[in-house]
Amino acid sequence: MPYPEHLRDRLAAVRIAIFDVDGVLTDGTLGGGAAHSRRWNVKDGFGFKLARKVGLRIGLCSGNDHADIRERAERLKLDVMRLGRLDKDQAVREILAELKLEPEQAIFTGDDLFDLPGIRAAGLGAAPADAAPELLERVDWRLQTCGGRGVGREVIEGVLQARGEWRSVIAPFIGDMEQGD
Amino acid sequence: MPYPEHLRDRLAAVRIAIFDVDGVLTDGTLGGGAAHSRRWNVKDGFGFKLARKVGLRIGLCSGNDHADIRERAERLKLDVMRLGRLDKDQAVREILAELKLEPEQAIFTGDDLFDLPGIRAAGLGAAPADAAPELLERVDWRLQTCGGRGVGREVIEGVLQARGEWRSVIAPFIGDMEQGD
Amino acid sequence: MPYPEHLRDRLAAVRIAIFDVDGVLTDGTLGGGAAHSRRWNVKDGFGFKLARKVGLRIGLCSGNDHADIRERAERLKLDVMRLGRLDKDQAVREILAELKLEPEQAIFTGDDLFDLPGIRAAGLGAAPADAAPELLERVDWRLQTCGGRGVGREVIEGVLQARGEWRSVIAPFIGDMEQGD
Amino acid sequence: MPYPEHLRDRLAAVRIAIFDVDGVLTDGTLGGGAAHSRRWNVKDGFGFKLARKVGLRIGLCSGNDHADIRERAERLKLDVMRLGRLDKDQAVREILAELKLEPEQAIFTGDDLFDLPGIRAAGLGAAPADAAPELLERVDWRLQTCGGRGVGREVIEGVLQARGEWRSVIAPFIGDMEQGD
Repeated sequence: MPYPEHLRDRLAAVRIAIFDVDGVLTDGTLGGGAAHSRRWNVKDGFGFKLARKVGLRIGLCSGNDHADIRERAERLKLDVMRLGRLDKDQAVREILAELKLEPEQAIFTGDDLFDLPGIRAAGLGAAPADAAPELLERVDWRLQTCGGRGVGREVIEGVLQARGEWRSVIAPFIGDMEQGD
Repeated sequence: MPYPEHLRDRLAAVRIAIFDVDGVLTDGTLGGGAAHSRRWNVKDGFGFKLARKVGLRIGLCSGNDHADIRERAERLKLDVMRLGRLDKDQAVREILAELKLEPEQAIFTGDDLFDLPGIRAAGLGAAPADAAPELLERVDWRLQTCGGRGVGREVIEGVLQARGEWRSVIAPFIGDMEQGD
Repeated sequence: MPYPEHLRDRLAAVRIAIFDVDGVLTDGTLGGGAAHSRRWNVKDGFGFKLARKVGLRIGLCSGNDHADIRERAERLKLDVMRLGRLDKDQAVREILAELKLEPEQAIFTGDDLFDLPGIRAAGLGAAPADAAPELLERVDWRLQTCGGRGVGREVIEGVLQARGEWRSVIAPFIGDMEQGD
Repeated sequence: MPYPEHLRDRLAAVRIAIFDVDGVLTDGTLGGGAAHSRRWNVKDGFGFKLARKVGLRIGLCSGNDHADIRERAERLKLDVMRLGRLDKDQAVREILAELKLEPEQAIFTGDDLFDLPGIRAAGLGAAPADAAPELLERVDWRLQTCGGRGVGREVIEGVLQARGEWRSVIAPFIGDMEQGD
């Protein structure tokens, strides 16, 4: 999936991709009960796996702190989490300090207005195609994918393409022959 | 999301937003079992939170009375509930009496014909984009959002915009700089 | 929702509406486990309730026989069930004999080819908008609704409209004033 | 549903249809917990049943190995499974050796790049309409169906049509009369 050409340099600088959870890695729906039964997408899981291969870090930053988010993050071996955080700007700054990264090395993907502080604390902001209109007006990158349909995959792919690492991470799947051209 | 300009004065008078549940705050599907596993949308939860900031009350009025509705209402700290009520007109009148409000201070959002009495007991009626056609013909406000995709958020946002309170409730997210313009 | 005008007389003769379950009253997806966690639509529940008011009977006829189907049928107080039946023509004939009805008094709604024998044993056949193309070619009534989005409601509404009973069943919701016109 | 005419001979040679699971037989979403609560489609179940009638084998090949996949495979009496396999090319070769089949007798359906090795080890590749764009560019057959909406059914139907066996497997449903023409 192509990324916006004018963002190439900024995407190439990214070392951590931070994601809001509901409406971004899910379609924004929640079941009841303690577990909350979010539904995740395998396309995101594959994207995060490719990211790990080249040292691109993945973080979660959500206003909610539920057992199923932690379980999913553990299964995917995600690098950093800030859950139950309403102060997303502060959460992002903590993550950057912890990893010794500059704001321009982070991209934050959110779907609603409360993600804006997090987006501004990072150097770059992205939002799913079905994010709140007021947020879409204020982000650098309007994604083609809707929440829960592979938003994480699209962001990772864009970053790795801008960094020139996409072809090498997919080489094992594409095969040697095709790599030649 | 914009609201219909001709409804501005009536929306500005609203002090309580009452919602049917199934097909409005959910997509109208139900799992089996006692819990019924409705799926809610985080966008609505965020809208209700913004409403509370400025004292706009939120009510639920459903023909069903299930554990998962009560659980969700409690988590969101909603103000009033009338569950298991087939006489939605009477339920709305009770709510208005309890809160000492006039009909023109209430908006009722429903998705099917059995919501019409509730809508008529309130001063204003809204319906999701995928509501029953016969209901859509009879409401003041046809929403852009489908049931379960953020209907509550769209209603709250419209009311707060008409009341001129939207910019202030989102100020903490938008930031001071932008508030200047 | 309008029904096909040329089917008016045949729809007006209907005394029982028989429905396949998966892909008709649900979107055709099944979770795992014993319960199978089908997701039903409240619009269908409302339609069945309106049908009961005027003595239009409702039946279920499915190749599957799972606990969650029985639970839903019980909750909705449906009149007849034939579950775990691969011989849908025979199942329909049993239902007709039991209720002392003629084939032309039944409509069968299914979504795939194995429903055709049931449809042919009934006098009239309907299929959701997303049914198997080979079935859609062979039914009298191609519905506007997709499986699980209110198929039962559309069928009931069409039958009651053709029988001239729709206005009276919705009168309690529409209100007296409007009934005058 | 029609298959691409130019693939007729290759489809007619197929003796086993191998499917990736997530995003192919499901819409790619996963719930949390041990069971993972995938949602399957009854249209696929019907397709697999028709395949069995004429000895067309069905296989599953997934990078995941979860209880709900095994449960579903058992219920559908599928012929072969290779779960928890990241080396899909090797998995396909094992299946072919086990069943004494040549690569040109297999079709592999996947939705993302990690399915490519499996697709290349089989003689023919298919992908759902909403597969990763990079995969869609590299498969022989771009399906009309999205993941979880009946992908298995579309593949089976295409193979049986190309083999000239479709009319006979659906004869019991279509009826004798129609078979005459």
